[in-house]
Amino acid sequence: MTATISNHLLDVDMLGRAGIERVLKKAEWFGSTNSTSYSHQLAGKLVVNLFYEPSTRTRMSFEIAARKLGAEVINFAVAGSSVEKGESLIDTVRTIEALGANAIVLRHQAAGAPYLLAKHYSGVIINAGDGRHAHPTQALLDLLTVYQAFGRTEDVTVAIVGDIQNSRVARSSAIALAMCGANVRLVSPPALSIHPDWLHGLGLSASIHTSLEEGITGADVVMALRIQRERQDQGYIPSIRNYITNYGITPEVIAKYCPGALIMHPGPANEGVEISADLMVAPNSLIQKQVANGVLVRMAVLSMLLGGDSE
Amino acid sequence: MTATISNHLLDVDMLGRAGIERVLKKAEWFGSTNSTSYSHQLAGKLVVNLFYEPSTRTRMSFEIAARKLGAEVINFAVAGSSVEKGESLIDTVRTIEALGANAIVLRHQAAGAPYLLAKHYSGVIINAGDGRHAHPTQALLDLLTVYQAFGRTEDVTVAIVGDIQNSRVARSSAIALAMCGANVRLVSPPALSIHPDWLHGLGLSASIHTSLEEGITGADVVMALRIQRERQDQGYIPSIRNYITNYGITPEVIAKYCPGALIMHPGPANEGVEISADLMVAPNSLIQKQVANGVLVRMAVLSMLLGGDSE
Amino acid sequence: MTATISNHLLDVDMLGRAGIERVLKKAEWFGSTNSTSYSHQLAGKLVVNLFYEPSTRTRMSFEIAARKLGAEVINFAVAGSSVEKGESLIDTVRTIEALGANAIVLRHQAAGAPYLLAKHYSGVIINAGDGRHAHPTQALLDLLTVYQAFGRTEDVTVAIVGDIQNSRVARSSAIALAMCGANVRLVSPPALSIHPDWLHGLGLSASIHTSLEEGITGADVVMALRIQRERQDQGYIPSIRNYITNYGITPEVIAKYCPGALIMHPGPANEGVEISADLMVAPNSLIQKQVANGVLVRMAVLSMLLGGDSE
Repeated sequence: MTATISNHLLDVDMLGRAGIERVLKKAEWFGSTNSTSYSHQLAGKLVVNLFYEPSTRTRMSFEIAARKLGAEVINFAVAGSSVEKGESLIDTVRTIEALGANAIVLRHQAAGAPYLLAKHYSGVIINAGDGRHAHPTQALLDLLTVYQAFGRTEDVTVAIVGDIQNSRVARSSAIALAMCGANVRLVSPPALSIHPDWLHGLGLSASIHTSLEEGITGADVVMALRIQRERQDQGYIPSIRNYITNYGITPEVIAKYCPGALIMHPGPANEGVEISADLMVAPNSLIQKQVANGVLVRMAVLSMLLGGDSE
Repeated sequence: MTATISNHLLDVDMLGRAGIERVLKKAEWFGSTNSTSYSHQLAGKLVVNLFYEPSTRTRMSFEIAARKLGAEVINFAVAGSSVEKGESLIDTVRTIEALGANAIVLRHQAAGAPYLLAKHYSGVIINAGDGRHAHPTQALLDLLTVYQAFGRTEDVTVAIVGDIQNSRVARSSAIALAMCGANVRLVSPPALSIHPDWLHGLGLSASIHTSLEEGITGADVVMALRIQRERQDQGYIPSIRNYITNYGITPEVIAKYCPGALIMHPGPANEGVEISADLMVAPNSLIQKQVANGVLVRMAVLSMLLGGDSE
Repeated sequence: MTATISNHLLDVDMLGRAGIERVLKKAEWFGSTNSTSYSHQLAGKLVVNLFYEPSTRTRMSFEIAARKLGAEVINFAVAGSSVEKGESLIDTVRTIEALGANAIVLRHQAAGAPYLLAKHYSGVIINAGDGRHAHPTQALLDLLTVYQAFGRTEDVTVAIVGDIQNSRVARSSAIALAMCGANVRLVSPPALSIHPDWLHGLGLSASIHTSLEEGITGADVVMALRIQRERQDQGYIPSIRNYITNYGITPEVIAKYCPGALIMHPGPANEGVEISADLMVAPNSLIQKQVANGVLVRMAVLSMLLGGDSE
């Protein structure tokens, strides 16, 4: 089974649809199986969380996933910490390799950083978010959540609403959803949109919308993205208030354009901005399910990449 | 036995005297039993330390206690870290719940925060200090320390000296001591005192003193509280120098007013301010015993609340 | 075997040559033995990493070493964190002792701090770097790396190049190498040199050089030290550029003065300053081996000091 994922997980497209589906199947197995079946699967393995950007939920999710499989986890938080100036990323990774790490979970502000490291590291690199580029385990957990809700991903219509241009979540999740047959709509203010052809290189497609009404009408799932408040100062959006009016996801908007749609958000949310607080905990919200599924897909990925997979 | 503590530990009074005594008994059991008897008691459980205020000793004490019982512990240090602006406390807790945490150990600057969270979390909330309100595990460790020193708590006279008004330690410890029959005296400068009737609502009483001589004469135990240096700037006390002169606990003061009294301090101490450095390590000091008992009572609480209790 | 190291590891000279060689032998044993033989050796032991200066690699190395032996590890990072003002180092250590720690791994900016603590702590103190004074586990890993490369340490010529005056690595490694029979050369700009007799008190000697050519000609090993950029502002060196020209270790310099010499660096390196980036990963570089050996010698030290040694 190790053949289904290569040595690293850099973005979700490298898995292929078959690979994605094996991860989801494995994740569901972890969700339905007693921990005694796997709690020593990665005993003796060392996973290093190397985070160049602040993160709490993704880091914790990986840490929990690795420990549930019996691995040791060391956090190497660079952001705001003491990494000595003058030490390059590659030298840091060489050090981590020499310390005996079997896998590095990397978050880095530079798109492509995990690809660079993969050339200099004999262990497993898992991309936990690189710049605006990719966030493959987020994509996998989103996909698992959609799959569980509908019993399929084929022909489910998912509208992703927010700062499409700058969101690695949007990119990776759109790819994964499209690869698995979902209808993907990318909805954003004009200045935060992307080129309609950007998925063509992968043989995939998504529709691009700058009208919320158009983008979410009839959608089965609406996934709101976190909007950075800096986008206002940077001139991408006229104002946060304007964004809320035109792109904020509220129970009223859902009732009007896509009644019955399920709600997702990668978190952490700006409550009352891109999504209303009441919608986050509404019965049709899948947000907590996403978090729980995050642990399961990370267990699946770690298990498959670190050879703990004995099926 | 899970009936003796409800699902959470928010303050010490909710335990009742019988509940407190069961915690102490359990703590003593952990202190006298070989670790092989309990080192897997909470295996598979996940405890999250969610600290919105800086802390080292309380956080470490909980972390050590949980690990000794075989639980996994994740630290989620919010103070000075990267929690995204706009994410509410409740949303953070929902995320931690979805990550699979069985217990949250919460320290928060807002009095009442753990009560709020207890309504939104299906697991166990343990209050590790909320604003000026409560610090129940500190109260339990203080009580255990007094109990061990005298073989009883009934009729032991304990003088708590310091910033009574702003101290959650004073509040919780006074409640616990009074509930278990100790004579509690609360000693402070006038501006840092509290209303004489504040314990009446719980059917308890403590005597209020603004004279150190009056407050500690004949006491069996003198517990000094950390005085915040800001109280000088805020005008609560004329000066730190004045505080030291009138309320500082020294060997001379003890010898004069309550010879033989045992010394306690919740830590960390301002040596030479509320307590003299030599007194901290004097033979009649129980300060290190308090720290050691802190681990034991937290083991007891975690064990009882997380159902690891198989007696 | 516990007799070979006293209760603490404060500097490398206290081990004596026989003690050093036993550590190296033990470290090699850990490197060649299946983890099942030792993964529970320190079960139930608690190691606290108490770091008053920032560190990533040394802290991680100790953490990994302790966990590989089954110990629990708690990180108590003081630098940039929340240690309450007014709490003394000694009081912090008393607290850690009462929390049940069996060993404290201490890094502190003050030379001698571990010696002070050793008088106030009943457990094991391991010096992980104190001011400009000592860094004994670095010395042990350097020595192991030299030993493995040559099959001996006797008469191996090791040139240590850099800020000798301010480097605890230089001091401890020079002592360890000289004690074990290596020829030690200390090479630095004049203002960063030390007195030729500084090792005489230990009955050891090293040659002092201010010319790189003189210092490394014919050396078997060249160990470059990290140069702090502040040294330029402080006037110890004319400029970083000047330092690179006169003391930078490059493939050309090695080829010219000591072809075939092996390269070491304690890390983290300023690539392109004291050492060229290509040399760090050249076939004759032992830098990654040093990192890997760091885990092994720390396992050996922890095992021997904490009584996990059952040979």
